[in-house]
Amino acid sequence: MAQSLLDGEDDPAIVVNEAGKSPYVLVCEHAGNRIPRKLGTLGLAAADLERHIAWDIGAERVSRVLSRLLDATLVMQRYSRLVYDCNRPPEAADAIPVMSEATAVPGNSNLSAEDKMARLGEICRPFHEAVTRVLDRRAAYGVAAKLVTIHSFTKVYKGKTRDVQLGFLHDRDSYLGGRLVKSFPGVDARLNEPYAPKDGVLHTVNLHAAPRGIKSVMIEIRNDLIANERGQNEWAQRLSVPLIQAAS
Amino acid sequence: MAQSLLDGEDDPAIVVNEAGKSPYVLVCEHAGNRIPRKLGTLGLAAADLERHIAWDIGAERVSRVLSRLLDATLVMQRYSRLVYDCNRPPEAADAIPVMSEATAVPGNSNLSAEDKMARLGEICRPFHEAVTRVLDRRAAYGVAAKLVTIHSFTKVYKGKTRDVQLGFLHDRDSYLGGRLVKSFPGVDARLNEPYAPKDGVLHTVNLHAAPRGIKSVMIEIRNDLIANERGQNEWAQRLSVPLIQAAS
Repeated sequence: MAQSLLDGEDDPAIVVNEAGKSPYVLVCEHAGNRIPRKLGTLGLAAADLERHIAWDIGAERVSRVLSRLLDATLVMQRYSRLVYDCNRPPEAADAIPVMSEATAVPGNSNLSAEDKMARLGEICRPFHEAVTRVLDRRAAYGVAAKLVTIHSFTKVYKGKTRDVQLGFLHDRDSYLGGRLVKSFPGVDARLNEPYAPKDGVLHTVNLHAAPRGIKSVMIEIRNDLIANERGQNEWAQRLSVPLIQAAS
Repeated sequence: MAQSLLDGEDDPAIVVNEAGKSPYVLVCEHAGNRIPRKLGTLGLAAADLERHIAWDIGAERVSRVLSRLLDATLVMQRYSRLVYDCNRPPEAADAIPVMSEATAVPGNSNLSAEDKMARLGEICRPFHEAVTRVLDRRAAYGVAAKLVTIHSFTKVYKGKTRDVQLGFLHDRDSYLGGRLVKSFPGVDARLNEPYAPKDGVLHTVNLHAAPRGIKSVMIEIRNDLIANERGQNEWAQRLSVPLIQAAS
């Protein structure tokens, strides 16, 4: 497809450790906060583009370390979720949010259908096609893949403080979430918190894992725990232990 | 991707009435019985390639007429399901069947991972990407699409005769199926027969409709009813009536 938005800028998908031997395939939809040059800053202040509304703070490094510890292939998305939220279907109003939490996104107002198709076609689809290729390869080799998506959430959301530290989100398939949630003594770990299927956030899992019948879980880490490299290393390692145990 | 299987032969997806105004998007995964030249006849007799095991007899013309009656975009797949069954995930053993009903498919035995990836990458993926593009376009324009897949089934399966004439198959979303099944007086119409979600045949619906939250149904017509043009026209017209009523 002719690129009208990225116009030669980097592909949205970053595939790490493509030859990884683990059955786990890691996905990080909100790893990056880059904005395509043509969209400027979407009308936002530079500081807003560092906030949770733009990306999942800390998630990229947790994903990269976890990929190394598990020897798992990782697929990340480099553009800000404010440009296109790859964990939403294109039918969702928040796929290209006009308002994120309490911040208006001027560059997302009054988009034409062509503007929306450019973001969908040049960011969302190439990213999801990269995930599909990684999973297809495992299917062709007879490897039963397991999909794990890595996210972080903000401690204070719309003025309310959240106690939950670690969330394991699932839709129909609760196998991995049910195992993982029991593996963190002393941590406030919960199933389907701070988000649940009704919030429409299980898109990647429902798009890639459910139709294949492969196991999956969406992991949400409170971002104050992974604000620096020490925390990111710590939580990648802590997550790797029950994941390795649940691998077979 | 470099083509190692099709090598310049026709694309698997046939998109009909791309500018159709209906909210319905029709899909016919098993419309064709073509075999890529490189695969010969898959070791089968010419007569086997005309049987139900190779394609959904009558489904192409029912789909084309229905597309015209509804002014709906239709996406069909031209290669035989014996080459690749686009209504199965790549993880399913019957995506590339070694045995179909009681017929062995010699050309599908002992395939390498590369052979499987070529079929998946050159037939399954381009077809499903065509469906995705059609649905994405509707999402960008704010049209709530409805996905209807058209299939036919054989009256005698593994030696047993089936009474059911018309099946409306659904997984979680029973809205369209529930309405349609009541709209055929004097016809043996049933929900989730002759196949149901447990048979793993809801793949297209689960891949394209469920993650988007759009309504869907899979229609199965007994193929003795649509063996000729008269029957194909009749059943396309009979199906169009309740579909038009359920459109809004």
